[in-house]
Amino acid sequence: MPTKRTELHTIGEFGLIARIRTLVDFHVDDATLHENLVRGVADDAAVYRPTPGKVQIFTTDAMVEGVHFDLTFQSVKHLGWKAMVCNISDVAAMGGVPRYAAVVLSLPQKMSVEMVEEFYEGAVFACKKYSCLIVGGDTTASSGNMMVTVAMTGEADGAKVVYRSGAEPGDLICVTGHLGAAHAGLSILLREKERFVKAPDPEAFEPNLEPYKFALKRYLMPEPRLDMSRLLVDNVKIHAMIDVSDGAASEVRHVCESSNVGAEVWEHNLPVEGVTQLIARELSKSATELALYGGEEYELLFTLSDKEFAKLERLTNDVTVIGRIVDLQRGVELVRESGERQPLPVGGWDHFRK
Amino acid sequence: MPTKRTELHTIGEFGLIARIRTLVDFHVDDATLHENLVRGVADDAAVYRPTPGKVQIFTTDAMVEGVHFDLTFQSVKHLGWKAMVCNISDVAAMGGVPRYAAVVLSLPQKMSVEMVEEFYEGAVFACKKYSCLIVGGDTTASSGNMMVTVAMTGEADGAKVVYRSGAEPGDLICVTGHLGAAHAGLSILLREKERFVKAPDPEAFEPNLEPYKFALKRYLMPEPRLDMSRLLVDNVKIHAMIDVSDGAASEVRHVCESSNVGAEVWEHNLPVEGVTQLIARELSKSATELALYGGEEYELLFTLSDKEFAKLERLTNDVTVIGRIVDLQRGVELVRESGERQPLPVGGWDHFRK
Repeated sequence: MPTKRTELHTIGEFGLIARIRTLVDFHVDDATLHENLVRGVADDAAVYRPTPGKVQIFTTDAMVEGVHFDLTFQSVKHLGWKAMVCNISDVAAMGGVPRYAAVVLSLPQKMSVEMVEEFYEGAVFACKKYSCLIVGGDTTASSGNMMVTVAMTGEADGAKVVYRSGAEPGDLICVTGHLGAAHAGLSILLREKERFVKAPDPEAFEPNLEPYKFALKRYLMPEPRLDMSRLLVDNVKIHAMIDVSDGAASEVRHVCESSNVGAEVWEHNLPVEGVTQLIARELSKSATELALYGGEEYELLFTLSDKEFAKLERLTNDVTVIGRIVDLQRGVELVRESGERQPLPVGGWDHFRK
Repeated sequence: MPTKRTELHTIGEFGLIARIRTLVDFHVDDATLHENLVRGVADDAAVYRPTPGKVQIFTTDAMVEGVHFDLTFQSVKHLGWKAMVCNISDVAAMGGVPRYAAVVLSLPQKMSVEMVEEFYEGAVFACKKYSCLIVGGDTTASSGNMMVTVAMTGEADGAKVVYRSGAEPGDLICVTGHLGAAHAGLSILLREKERFVKAPDPEAFEPNLEPYKFALKRYLMPEPRLDMSRLLVDNVKIHAMIDVSDGAASEVRHVCESSNVGAEVWEHNLPVEGVTQLIARELSKSATELALYGGEEYELLFTLSDKEFAKLERLTNDVTVIGRIVDLQRGVELVRESGERQPLPVGGWDHFRK
């Protein structure tokens, strides 16, 4: 939390926009992005030149206080980072690279000018790392909770764009990195928040976070897999790709529905890190549940043939095979460690389902 | 209000997305937009081909319940329309045409599936009229108020894009259409809401709206001036342009700040319709105040030379000269009907200023 507190109404909307501009101007060291930006934050809309021959990617993602984030244990700087990353991840999942972004903030009274600046510091930090320019947005008051929406454009070679709909029976299902750590980290933050609320002496309360640092980082500052997206589209033939934002089980179902195929997911292959297993044990959850239903991972889930996988294996060890695409009639199954088969339970992060 | 009420949680996020898709699929009869859309709502992001040689326009606008709209007197269908229009207006103000849009809805518990469908009916109605395709978005729960964010892309000939920053001393300042009616309409809706709240018998209450219908429509279903934007960029040399979303006074200031010039605004020339004058009298406001500080008009304010204006006058009578650009040192002045000059009061719609 910043120590200084300037109320938003003392500088007004246009004063706030001026402060934001100084943070986002020239924040990314990428000459091409700047050269092709004809007009940035200072007009009714941004104007840019698309790279000739490329297709444009266009995505948007919203985060709502009380639904997607909790400012009692999440800093606004982390929030700024994450708001950019979840969009960059969508662009990566199409096989593209991010270009320009617009940020919409709806701010309740409790937010100060300094908190907004911290939000933008986090957002700009992500923009610098992943080469994306903030070129516009909107800032409004909110009579309720804080909301963040980011819209983003990206680019790709038309021939290299990867959709959800291209999976073929026989394909291997792979994921980058590991699964479940982000949700495991969130679970720890929620547990410590509850301990704090119930503490007899809140002033003396010390949260127990140290053993879980890796998982907390995966939740608070996830990294989009632009690196793996690039490696994949440049070197192998991927049939389908999606990012793991709702949980791996949900993403497998999305790919199957879009591609008109079935799938089997192999429990014994799910890549789960030690810290996630530790947290699962402490919280009496199964590591499989965290891996399949955790969400907010921003890893990539993709399908490709055995032959292409053999090529990929020589290039990276950051990919794990977690199952295989099968015929539509066979449905979507989970093959348990015991060898038992069952329909893959429906789940994942669904905002309205109770 | 729809008579049927299906709770959002009974169909879940993906069920809702499926319902939305049937509303937005093939909703616009524009072959080029469809042909160049490689992938729409069914993936991590939309993918489209830009028209070769054109620059891309990118904008976003948010509307928050309790700040920008009030569902006690605004239907969600009108809201859907307006959410599209305020973005289309930004594209028009750059001299471009809209192409693709993404819609983000954050929905509190009180919203039903039918209300979301009505929102999209309004949005699609605007898309059909102004040739824009909804190609993506995000739908989330909200723990507080309803929020709508639309992000939009558009296109323009690079040489024809008009910025805020090109105004030159000597230019005439013009507006399309009329000023003040939208805010006048809102004032009536607020007055009738207050009468309803105070009515001894709410069931017998009849709002008095008939005499103000034109102003109400300007507030509830404003029209973006794509028609005038096209006419202007195709026929005359415009130096600067902006849409009137915060009020004409505020827009004149934006143009002056971006262009490093001053301005004088002529009170006796402000185009105010009869109904706006009627409402001003009833509410003991001045028509000038409504015209200068009303906002949410979505008319275009632009500057051009006398010579270009002479050309424009032969093409349309939907334009009014409201002042002249002057040197920076002279500041921004209002010339009253009496001939008296005063600094143009700062005002307009500012979200945080108290």
